[in-house]
Amino acid sequence: MIKPFTSKISTPDGRLTPHHNHIQRTLSTMKGQYADQPAYQAMLAQGDQLIYEVYENRLAEIPGELQHGTSIVHPGKVGNEYFMTKGHFHNVLETAEVYYCLQGVGYMMMETPEGEWAAEELAPGVVLYVPPRWAHRSINVGRQDLVTFFIYPGDAGHDYGTIETRGFRKIIVEQDGQPLVMDNPAWLE
Amino acid sequence: MIKPFTSKISTPDGRLTPHHNHIQRTLSTMKGQYADQPAYQAMLAQGDQLIYEVYENRLAEIPGELQHGTSIVHPGKVGNEYFMTKGHFHNVLETAEVYYCLQGVGYMMMETPEGEWAAEELAPGVVLYVPPRWAHRSINVGRQDLVTFFIYPGDAGHDYGTIETRGFRKIIVEQDGQPLVMDNPAWLE
Repeated sequence: MIKPFTSKISTPDGRLTPHHNHIQRTLSTMKGQYADQPAYQAMLAQGDQLIYEVYENRLAEIPGELQHGTSIVHPGKVGNEYFMTKGHFHNVLETAEVYYCLQGVGYMMMETPEGEWAAEELAPGVVLYVPPRWAHRSINVGRQDLVTFFIYPGDAGHDYGTIETRGFRKIIVEQDGQPLVMDNPAWLE
Repeated sequence: MIKPFTSKISTPDGRLTPHHNHIQRTLSTMKGQYADQPAYQAMLAQGDQLIYEVYENRLAEIPGELQHGTSIVHPGKVGNEYFMTKGHFHNVLETAEVYYCLQGVGYMMMETPEGEWAAEELAPGVVLYVPPRWAHRSINVGRQDLVTFFIYPGDAGHDYGTIETRGFRKIIVEQDGQPLVMDNPAWLE
């Protein structure tokens, strides 16, 4: 049986100390995810830039435990599409996730297997409930890091493959200096 | 199927807006919980003071959902024992809880049915993992409100009765201006 333990989230960088795992996702791991492929290739040719990071505490993968950590999406764009996470469904589809936004501004893009979609705004102090069945991706539309604290059931797991294959139905791009939700031209039904 | 939704936590008061439920616990609801009974009675005779508040979003009571909200323990003491929450086990004992401290300073007092205990310090930025099986109570040892954000599995439920009947093994009192963990003289084995 494990004992209670604490970590600390530092601001403004969102680092969780101590942590069990630190994930760094660079541009090359996001192949096929951005709508503007020429812009993606051109950016990648200049270097494999860091897009987002996750610090996590890993607990037993059983229902009563709670996985948790911080997500830091750095600011930037690929073409006119904002930096974002890969996004995923949970392997156990009927599991929720809670996000608490600590810093920055952005959106959580979400969709269900049945075709519903939703985009909720993230700003410091916002608590977002991602219900069971909703895939989710964080998108940073600001100039600072977008930092969130996340919690999900121990057994939920990640299904990245579905999104990698077909993308999200909607993307968020910058138009006239403002974020705009639009249909994903690359979405595969 | 529910849709994604957001609430916002305001600072420094810890109010969650909107919320499904607002709980206010006054001194009279804490009968038998403070070690110094004459001090408790004397304080109660002067008025039924507000000790702590909870703002919560209530989701379906099934494992894949996540109950969440904020807890605000006001500053104060009953005799030399700091203001605290009632404390509880989860009805489904094998369920964890995550706390993120937003403001104030305090402790989470925890214990298991098997007799282990632990007290972890809470301060802004601290993430606390309360593993399955650990009863937990927030204690405010500072002069401001102690504000935490909490998340636990949808089906966990609350068992307040066990703690109401026998108390926690340890209490935290002020001694020479400092918090001191000591044996609970009123604890029933």
